[in-house]
Amino acid sequence: MTEPIAISMGDPAGIGPEIIAKTWAARATRDIPPFFAIGDQRAVRRVWDGPIQSIDDPRDAAAAFAHALPVMTVEDGGQIVPGHPDTEGARCALHSLELAAGLVRSGAARALVTGPVSKSQLYAIGFSHAGQTEFVAERCGISGSNAVMMLAGPGLRVVPMTTHIPLSAVPSALTIDLVLAKARATARGLRRNFGIAHPRIVVAGLNPHAGEDGALGREEIDVLSPAIAQLQAEGMAITGPLAADTLFHPRARARYDAALCCYHDQALVPLKTLFFDEGVNITLGLPMVRTSPDHGTAFGIAGKDCAEPGAMIAAVLMAASAADCRALHACA
Amino acid sequence: MTEPIAISMGDPAGIGPEIIAKTWAARATRDIPPFFAIGDQRAVRRVWDGPIQSIDDPRDAAAAFAHALPVMTVEDGGQIVPGHPDTEGARCALHSLELAAGLVRSGAARALVTGPVSKSQLYAIGFSHAGQTEFVAERCGISGSNAVMMLAGPGLRVVPMTTHIPLSAVPSALTIDLVLAKARATARGLRRNFGIAHPRIVVAGLNPHAGEDGALGREEIDVLSPAIAQLQAEGMAITGPLAADTLFHPRARARYDAALCCYHDQALVPLKTLFFDEGVNITLGLPMVRTSPDHGTAFGIAGKDCAEPGAMIAAVLMAASAADCRALHACA
Repeated sequence: MTEPIAISMGDPAGIGPEIIAKTWAARATRDIPPFFAIGDQRAVRRVWDGPIQSIDDPRDAAAAFAHALPVMTVEDGGQIVPGHPDTEGARCALHSLELAAGLVRSGAARALVTGPVSKSQLYAIGFSHAGQTEFVAERCGISGSNAVMMLAGPGLRVVPMTTHIPLSAVPSALTIDLVLAKARATARGLRRNFGIAHPRIVVAGLNPHAGEDGALGREEIDVLSPAIAQLQAEGMAITGPLAADTLFHPRARARYDAALCCYHDQALVPLKTLFFDEGVNITLGLPMVRTSPDHGTAFGIAGKDCAEPGAMIAAVLMAASAADCRALHACA
Repeated sequence: MTEPIAISMGDPAGIGPEIIAKTWAARATRDIPPFFAIGDQRAVRRVWDGPIQSIDDPRDAAAAFAHALPVMTVEDGGQIVPGHPDTEGARCALHSLELAAGLVRSGAARALVTGPVSKSQLYAIGFSHAGQTEFVAERCGISGSNAVMMLAGPGLRVVPMTTHIPLSAVPSALTIDLVLAKARATARGLRRNFGIAHPRIVVAGLNPHAGEDGALGREEIDVLSPAIAQLQAEGMAITGPLAADTLFHPRARARYDAALCCYHDQALVPLKTLFFDEGVNITLGLPMVRTSPDHGTAFGIAGKDCAEPGAMIAAVLMAASAADCRALHACA
C-alpha cells in the first residue's frame, strides 16, 4: 500500500484550510491521491461544510479519504477568525509543519505539502528560520543553504540562484561557487523528482541582453560563463548566459528543463505571469519530497470561499509524482 | 486623403526587407493601411519574388500599394548578402532612417515605422546615438532623454524607466525625478497615441515583494513611493510600488493601461514571454508617431524565408492607430 501525502495546513486564518478542502473535493475529477491534513480541524470547519474525518494515524488516511477529508489535529489553533491571524494560530501552523515533516521523515507519509504560513506571525512566536524551506531542511539534517527552491508551472521550471535579498545585493551575491552549487542541485533534482535522465539547463544573464559582451555589465563574463564552462566540462547539458527577455516564450521554453535565474523576480515574473494559479514551489536537495503552492496566506480573501485551489492541487499532484519517481529510482 | 506610413527598411542584410514584404502581402487579410518602404529595393528582391513598384514621391504610395510593394530607393546598399551585414548596408540603413523621419516630420507620411538595424554596424560608420530612438528624437528637436520607450503587446504595455545599463547601476539610476518624468510621459503618451483619456498606471517595485516594507531594500520607500505620492497629488491614476512577480498575470493586467518598470528585463521579460512575436516598440514624447517591431536584425535567419512578420504587422497597425488618434485629438 502506498502511504498518503501529509499536508500541513499553514496559518489557520489564511486560505490554507479552504484550498486543502477544495483539493479534497476535486479528488475524483483531478485524480488526486490520498492525503491527510495536519492542523486544527475547526479551521476547515470555519470555511467549508463538507465531510471531515479525524484521524490519529496516517494509516487511517487512505480509507477515510474516499468519503471525507482526513484531518490529524495537532493542537488548538485558538480563536481562528479567517483573515485575522494571531499567535495561537501561528503556533498551530508551526506544530503542524513540524509533525508533518516528522511523519514524512519517518516514512509514515510519502511526501510533504506545506500550506501557506505568515512569516511575520511566525517571527512573533520566535521562529528563527528564513522560511518553511529552511525549517524542513534543518529537520532533515540539511543546511538550509543546500535546499534549493524551484518554482514549477505546467510548462516552466525556474530556480532563483538568489532569493529574498535587495536587488542591489544581487550582483555581489552571484559567485561562481553559487552557480555551481545551484546548477548541480538542479540537475540532481530534475533526475530524482522528475525522472529526467539528462536534464537540459539554461542560465539567464544578469544584465540586459546578457551583458552584450561586457558592454552592459561584466557578471556574465566574470561569473556566469566560467561556472557554465566548468559544468559543461563535467558533462552537464547547460548553456548560457542567455538574455532573460527572450528565454521564456513558448519556443524558448521547449529547449530546456529548467532555467537558473540570477534573482527572485527574474525567475518569479515569468513563472507567475504564465502560471499564476498553478505555480508550485518544490524544494530540491532534501531527503524527502516537499512541495507547496506558490502563493501566500492571502488573509484578505480568507473565509470568502473565493480562494483558487489550483496551485494546491498542482502541489499535491507534483508531490505524488516526485515521490513515485524517487521510489522507482530507489528500486531500479 | 490620408498620407501613407513610411517604413525604413533597416539593415538590408537583416530580416527587415523580408518582414516588410510579408506585411505588404498580408495587407488584405490584416487590413493594413497603405505604406511604403525606404531603402534599397534590391534588398527586398533578394528575399522575395512578389511585385515591387519604385516610387519617388510618397503621394504615389497609396495607388501603388494596391498591387505592389512601394519602395523609395535612397541609396545603393552595396552587395547585400542576407545574413552578412557590411558598412555599405549600414549606410543605406542610416540614410533610409533619416529620409523616413524627414518625410514624417514634413507631413508627407503620417507615421514612422523603423525596421531593425545593427547597432554595431552603425557604430562602425560613425553613428553616435544610443539607438534609432535617440536619432529620431534629435531629428525632431527633442532630447533623447525625453523620448520614452514603451513596449506594447496585445494585452500589455510596459515602460522600462532605465534601459541599457548594467543591473548593478539600476538602483542608483532610479531617482524621484526619473520616475516623475517617465510617469508623466507615459500618461501623456497613452492619451495621445492610444486615446486613453484617464490612463491607469502601475509602478513595479525594484526589490523582491516590492521590498517588504524595507526589509528587502529601501528604493520603494525612498524613491518610488514619494514619486507616486506626488503624481497622485497631481491627479494621476497611479498606484504602487507593487510586487513585480504578481503584476503581469491576466487578472492583474486588466487593472492598468501601462506598467512602469525599474529596469530593462523587468519590463521585457513579461512582454516577450507573453507576446514574443507581436511586441511593438513605440516611442512616446516625440512630435510624430514612431513604432518598430520589438526584435533585432536576426542575421542568423535572414534570407531563409522563415522570419515571422507578426511584430512588423503589429508595428504598422499600431502606428496607423496612433496617427489616427492624434489626428482626432488635433481636430477635437
